[in-house]
Amino acid sequence: MTRVQTMACGSCSNENAYKAMFIWYRNKERGHNTPSGDDLSTCMINQAPGCPELSILSFMGAFHGRTLGCLATTHSKAIHKLDVPSFDWPIAPFPRLQYPLEEFTKENTQEEAHCLEEVEDLIVKWRQKGKPVAGIVIEPIQAEGGDNHASPDFFRSLRNIARKHGCAFHVDEVQTGGGSTGKFWAHEHWGMDDPADIVSFSKKLLTGGYFHKDELQADQPYRIFNTWMGDPSKNLLLAEVLNVIRRENLLEEVTRSGKALLNGLYALQAQYPGILSRARGQGTFCAIDICDDATRNSILLKARDKGVLLGGCGDRSIRFRPALVFKEYHVHLFLNIFNDVLNQHK
Amino acid sequence: MTRVQTMACGSCSNENAYKAMFIWYRNKERGHNTPSGDDLSTCMINQAPGCPELSILSFMGAFHGRTLGCLATTHSKAIHKLDVPSFDWPIAPFPRLQYPLEEFTKENTQEEAHCLEEVEDLIVKWRQKGKPVAGIVIEPIQAEGGDNHASPDFFRSLRNIARKHGCAFHVDEVQTGGGSTGKFWAHEHWGMDDPADIVSFSKKLLTGGYFHKDELQADQPYRIFNTWMGDPSKNLLLAEVLNVIRRENLLEEVTRSGKALLNGLYALQAQYPGILSRARGQGTFCAIDICDDATRNSILLKARDKGVLLGGCGDRSIRFRPALVFKEYHVHLFLNIFNDVLNQHK
Repeated sequence: MTRVQTMACGSCSNENAYKAMFIWYRNKERGHNTPSGDDLSTCMINQAPGCPELSILSFMGAFHGRTLGCLATTHSKAIHKLDVPSFDWPIAPFPRLQYPLEEFTKENTQEEAHCLEEVEDLIVKWRQKGKPVAGIVIEPIQAEGGDNHASPDFFRSLRNIARKHGCAFHVDEVQTGGGSTGKFWAHEHWGMDDPADIVSFSKKLLTGGYFHKDELQADQPYRIFNTWMGDPSKNLLLAEVLNVIRRENLLEEVTRSGKALLNGLYALQAQYPGILSRARGQGTFCAIDICDDATRNSILLKARDKGVLLGGCGDRSIRFRPALVFKEYHVHLFLNIFNDVLNQHK
Repeated sequence: MTRVQTMACGSCSNENAYKAMFIWYRNKERGHNTPSGDDLSTCMINQAPGCPELSILSFMGAFHGRTLGCLATTHSKAIHKLDVPSFDWPIAPFPRLQYPLEEFTKENTQEEAHCLEEVEDLIVKWRQKGKPVAGIVIEPIQAEGGDNHASPDFFRSLRNIARKHGCAFHVDEVQTGGGSTGKFWAHEHWGMDDPADIVSFSKKLLTGGYFHKDELQADQPYRIFNTWMGDPSKNLLLAEVLNVIRRENLLEEVTRSGKALLNGLYALQAQYPGILSRARGQGTFCAIDICDDATRNSILLKARDKGVLLGGCGDRSIRFRPALVFKEYHVHLFLNIFNDVLNQHK
């Protein structure tokens, strides 16, 4: 992609990415960039056609931020959304893969096909409702929602559906971007020439923002704008982080330690089948399910008391989010501690 | 106010302030803080009652930011809002005062009374529509919208209307906070004991955020949340800025130079009645209207060529936004240059 727009945080990045998609979509509908008098007068009072009834299609379990636009595409936990007014935008099911993947190839392929069908149905339904889908937003791995993965095939097909229906395709890499999956961007694992129209980032990138194609550049100044538009001091820090990633080959390191971590989780899962299931991951971006929420919380606390900070995600998953300097010997240190903790929960 | 919530920018500050008002309002409606099962399930799919049809009342000409929630309360320029979906929220007229104020006391009092009546009508109307007003948001001076002022009486009455109807009262000081009006917060000019329930800030404060009353504290963690929740490094810078403001008595300085600036603008307005009108301001937060947009742009360019950076606001205003270290002798330097520029436009 040829363009980047910096912003201060992940929510602002996604809010502005959505705005870029809406502006792009409306200009495409018009066939030109000149708003009508009616557009200009109605938008001042929040009404169509100036403020059009467009929508963004998101996925159940997604997390894209907590400001009002983002929140309309976030569906991970009720506490994030409760009591905040929202938009009538379509929500598709995200594949729920069965593990181990190699045992459930057929079921998982069917599950993904079903979700893709739903996406197309929703696009058609919302167009008929008069609220066309301007863009589809998706995480390469649903992080906050429980570390939910889908296959590269799923994302390739979804990207094609977006193209077929004239929707922009927005890949939200706020959680997955920056190297922890073993590639700098998680969408690189899909092996596509044209994986997205817009890619947002934040967190590990130390600043927020989004990359986008030329055609998603707003046609006039002040349409995408903000007091600070990001923070140059964070960009300086980021430049040095990128240098270290290159110099120390951290992406290879992550791939190596991620493999050791996931293999270790597989082994523990075999050892503690009553507690652990669905070990999964890409690079060190790993997770595992715990039998129930109470056991999960007890494990999290006991691991913390032994000096290991783990986090929960979804209903009963534990997610592993080590820094990029997490090496193979750290993996073994961790697995020993984790084994001790699990042993106390048998 | 006893509490402050930092955020990264003005838009995020207002988005989260709105969320705090919605959460507060819904808990007030419930009579307790425990959401129903229906609340929890419907909010996940963007529907009522979990995502309730609540609204924020804003004013025509207002600017509160550019993310989707904020944008639904922004009504300053079409280019900010065009093509972005919005909410059906009530928009009240902001007083359009006639200048000089002392000649139009009666008209201006009537104008403000009329706007206040409209506010009450809208609150009732939106309640009947099933979209109750959870909060009223207003700038002490509408900045982006054209430096529109209202009297302390207006704000006092508005605050009472908010209280009477059970709406939170949110004063957006993103533009006016930080000292340029001669007080640290512009709402201090209203002389009230209880001027607001929530006050947002950004820009001059170097970081974003909002102050709020205890009762507007969200009742659970993660309801108001963000990856970074502001930036401690900016708070360090701000602490030093506040030290300088105190040490150098910059608020007194601003009051003094603001008076000189406004008197100078009055004099120029008398000298160039065909070009200038409606000189107005508080501290150095001043503005003046120009006969037409083309002349305004020509004046802005010519002033720039003489080393003075001025900005436009509203349809045909010029706004003055000097730094807090702008002293009386700077005012005279400026007025001489401005006089030269105006002389070229006679």
